Amino acid sequence: MRTYKLALIGFGNVGQGFTQILRDQSESLAQRFGAEYKIVAVCDKLKGSLYHPEGLDPALLLDTVQAGKSLETLKTEASGWDAQETIAGCGADVLVELSYTDLETGEPAASHLRQALKAGMHAVTTNKGPIALHFPELLKIARENHVQVGIEGTVMSGTPTLHLGLDLLAGAEVQKIQGILNGTTNYMLTQMEQGISYGDVLADAQEKGYAEADPTGDVEGFDAAGKVVILANVLMGASITLNDVEREGITGLTVDDITAAQAEGQRWKLIAGVEKTPDRIKASVRPTRLAVDHPLASVGGPTNAVTFTTALLGDVTLIGPGAGRLATGYAILCDLISIDRITQ
Amino acid sequence: MRTYKLALIGFGNVGQGFTQILRDQSESLAQRFGAEYKIVAVCDKLKGSLYHPEGLDPALLLDTVQAGKSLETLKTEASGWDAQETIAGCGADVLVELSYTDLETGEPAASHLRQALKAGMHAVTTNKGPIALHFPELLKIARENHVQVGIEGTVMSGTPTLHLGLDLLAGAEVQKIQGILNGTTNYMLTQMEQGISYGDVLADAQEKGYAEADPTGDVEGFDAAGKVVILANVLMGASITLNDVEREGITGLTVDDITAAQAEGQRWKLIAGVEKTPDRIKASVRPTRLAVDHPLASVGGPTNAVTFTTALLGDVTLIGPGAGRLATGYAILCDLISIDRITQ
Repeated sequence: MRTYKLALIGFGNVGQGFTQILRDQSESLAQRFGAEYKIVAVCDKLKGSLYHPEGLDPALLLDTVQAGKSLETLKTEASGWDAQETIAGCGADVLVELSYTDLETGEPAASHLRQALKAGMHAVTTNKGPIALHFPELLKIARENHVQVGIEGTVMSGTPTLHLGLDLLAGAEVQKIQGILNGTTNYMLTQMEQGISYGDVLADAQEKGYAEADPTGDVEGFDAAGKVVILANVLMGASITLNDVEREGITGLTVDDITAAQAEGQRWKLIAGVEKTPDRIKASVRPTRLAVDHPLASVGGPTNAVTFTTALLGDVTLIGPGAGRLATGYAILCDLISIDRITQ
Repeated sequence: MRTYKLALIGFGNVGQGFTQILRDQSESLAQRFGAEYKIVAVCDKLKGSLYHPEGLDPALLLDTVQAGKSLETLKTEASGWDAQETIAGCGADVLVELSYTDLETGEPAASHLRQALKAGMHAVTTNKGPIALHFPELLKIARENHVQVGIEGTVMSGTPTLHLGLDLLAGAEVQKIQGILNGTTNYMLTQMEQGISYGDVLADAQEKGYAEADPTGDVEGFDAAGKVVILANVLMGASITLNDVEREGITGLTVDDITAAQAEGQRWKLIAGVEKTPDRIKASVRPTRLAVDHPLASVGGPTNAVTFTTALLGDVTLIGPGAGRLATGYAILCDLISIDRITQ
């Protein structure tokens, strides 16, 4: 049995989803993959911070947080460490970086990742910011330190888009990628097809928790643009930044636009695309009319999808969840299984 | 640079498609993956058989066959070997088994695979017969001999369905799989939606080379059933056989049935399914009405698709080609890259 000690920085929805998977499936994972995962440290600015070298009980962590109590009410070897102290002191094999996303600086996540990789830990993150901004640098540090960086959850949550592109389609020569990478706007556009106005749909999405109070990141296409940067840099060997993405959100679309498209057998989708041209990589996010029989046209609600256009296989499309507590928690597990497969 | 010597048994469409990929991409593969692939033997009952320990030139092999000449007109170290002699004498690292498919016996492919695995060669095949019938046995032999068996091309050609399920979704607990696994019947059903009769559509499919002169294997669901057996045994740990699959083809469907479904916002698809129930694995192939917004409903023409229903991610759908010279040739490359990744 191979044992991996994990340190979780951030214990919000994703961290709790992942911990729930460990709580429920540790035995089955051990049996199927010959690997066990122990959370030795959790560090969350609001929920508290604690460390135990023998591992913390996932059920106890979840119960404590769900009861609204600080994690530091639990008895452990140490508590109260900040992120930097946690990474330095926890002796984990893998840093699981789940702090909040900042698409402008990538901080504090980028610093956490650098610190862990330089200390010889593998790192896994679902955090778009540091990966959209600093992936080439982080990969370089990882290679210098002979460790892996897992980033599956940064695009389409646990739907294994990046692993599909990197591990399974690399030999087929990916020439173009088009996707529905933001579930919030896709939900909104799907609702607008019922004739509901942009304003009402936005209010509904905010009420359901799909959209934030300030929806700019979603509706203006910043979230999708961050993901396009990741696809371009990770799968097409580019090194572009957010500024290289031509970006247009959905705020200009009206119900009239949407019903006019429907009348012609088409659907408006917010399409994130990246394409290799002879001289450069072109990346964009923009509302696009698709014929209803296009594989991305039937992707409704908060679901995400991506179509890889390849030289040898033509189009290959992957459709799956783009958010969700367990789905994003699974992204971490998917990366951990992959690290175990590569390094064992 | 890691070098793999390959022996190809069978040099029809798939073997030639794969050889074309090697001809065009050897340099790029070497650069990207650090591995090179040399065809040291080709053995085809009709096109001839030859061997050269230093490798045969892919371009020369293709030109010879495309000029209608026997491969044995080429100068090599040995020629005229049958499959058994080829496997025994070629010293290859990987057997690429591409002889014809027999869903009743799996022969002669199964014997070729056994012989190669026992001799310590990895084996890669796109041949449904031996895998639908003998996969558990072949896997056991492979494990005993510390070698790998690659079978990506047996379902959905080069669309990496089996690798997705095994490598990337295994931890998400696959509970149910539903797919459109036969391109011929999906093309026919799509054409019938235009009001063309079953008989005319079949004649058209035969003319285009999608359906064989005796179309039974496709239209009665045998081909899809073979693939369902593979999905069940490989991805869900079952050990079922063709006889365990409830099977119904599309010969009972009329244009009237299809237009009646369309009027109700539905589409008929030949759905191959496998599902875990508490006490057993249930497998079936049968015409099924799907709502038009079901992810499989918009899959038209000869395209294939599969939806994995998982505990942690919900539904994940993969859509891609199910046939084609280069697409199936890519399946072999995908398996070879995977073997290289696992064994290096």
